[in-house]
Amino acid sequence: MAGLGKKVLIVYAHQEPRSFNGSLKDVAVAELGRQGCSITVSDLYAMDFEPRATRNDITGTLSNPETFSYGVEVYEAYKKAALSSDIVQEQKKVQEADLVIFQFPLYWFSVPAILKGWMDRVLCQGFAFDLPGFYDDGFLKGKSAILSLTTGGTAEMYSKTGVSGDVRYFLWPLQGRTGTCRQGAGARRGAAR
Amino acid sequence: MAGLGKKVLIVYAHQEPRSFNGSLKDVAVAELGRQGCSITVSDLYAMDFEPRATRNDITGTLSNPETFSYGVEVYEAYKKAALSSDIVQEQKKVQEADLVIFQFPLYWFSVPAILKGWMDRVLCQGFAFDLPGFYDDGFLKGKSAILSLTTGGTAEMYSKTGVSGDVRYFLWPLQGRTGTCRQGAGARRGAAR
Repeated sequence: MAGLGKKVLIVYAHQEPRSFNGSLKDVAVAELGRQGCSITVSDLYAMDFEPRATRNDITGTLSNPETFSYGVEVYEAYKKAALSSDIVQEQKKVQEADLVIFQFPLYWFSVPAILKGWMDRVLCQGFAFDLPGFYDDGFLKGKSAILSLTTGGTAEMYSKTGVSGDVRYFLWPLQGRTGTCRQGAGARRGAAR
Repeated sequence: MAGLGKKVLIVYAHQEPRSFNGSLKDVAVAELGRQGCSITVSDLYAMDFEPRATRNDITGTLSNPETFSYGVEVYEAYKKAALSSDIVQEQKKVQEADLVIFQFPLYWFSVPAILKGWMDRVLCQGFAFDLPGFYDDGFLKGKSAILSLTTGGTAEMYSKTGVSGDVRYFLWPLQGRTGTCRQGAGARRGAAR
């Protein structure tokens, strides 16, 4: 029971339960459950999760209704507890989690838009970071994250000399995004500071 | 009239017309128009563009309704002219363009989800590429693309020794995606083949 009491959030972005991604999610749920973890799954397509960052993410009045600045308004709304309920629910799941697993197929060298929208909207200033208080000093420090992804190509295609280039190169922006990863390019960035 | 007769598509992803991104788009429209280009703007937020890649992108029946595979179904739908009308309209704009300008603010080291969704859904197999017929041999070969983006940080933060790392590192997946860019990391990938 290595994971006894640990909380895991799986942010899952595939349309088809019987896909390889769906199976990987199911196996993770079963195995982590066996180890004593409690698991929450955000099944983004099933939730019809909203990826667009818009004025609808802020309930009530805006601090500057004349010129809409998404980042500014969401930051203010976070502090006033005036974010839309779908964002608040996801932030609560992240806050409670010890480990977040992102399960997705690679779309154009990155996450599918529905998952990018989860990152854009949920990991907002005030919740995930502030200035100062970002990257290695971000507010999700201490949590772990795993990128679990499938590709449409072979391992060789995603090697340094392969046609797509080293998978670590295009995972780097994603690893930086989580603010919790210490391996690969994330460590290189840390060394460059 | 350096651009006389040239066709330009601006894929624009900002919520606020009076933003810096909005101004950059407006200046591009004015200046390219002055040079004799014809310009089309896809204003993604104003269009409420759908970023989610779902079964709704295929009109009519699926080739495998039992197990939904987005990539397979969209490829088949492209060949049968059975893609949803919003995708078809954007593909037509891309097809006609000599130059595509992506105008966006950087969200988590990449494009906002609404623009990622444009890339995921519009640049589908059959239209933008095939196997074989991808990357340097993709179907948009010969067109030009510009990434025009704003950041929330200083130039120094996005330098090689800056806290965010070299901007070229995290633009690399985006440059590869366009399949048209020859500079920077794109060229490095070419050399590695």
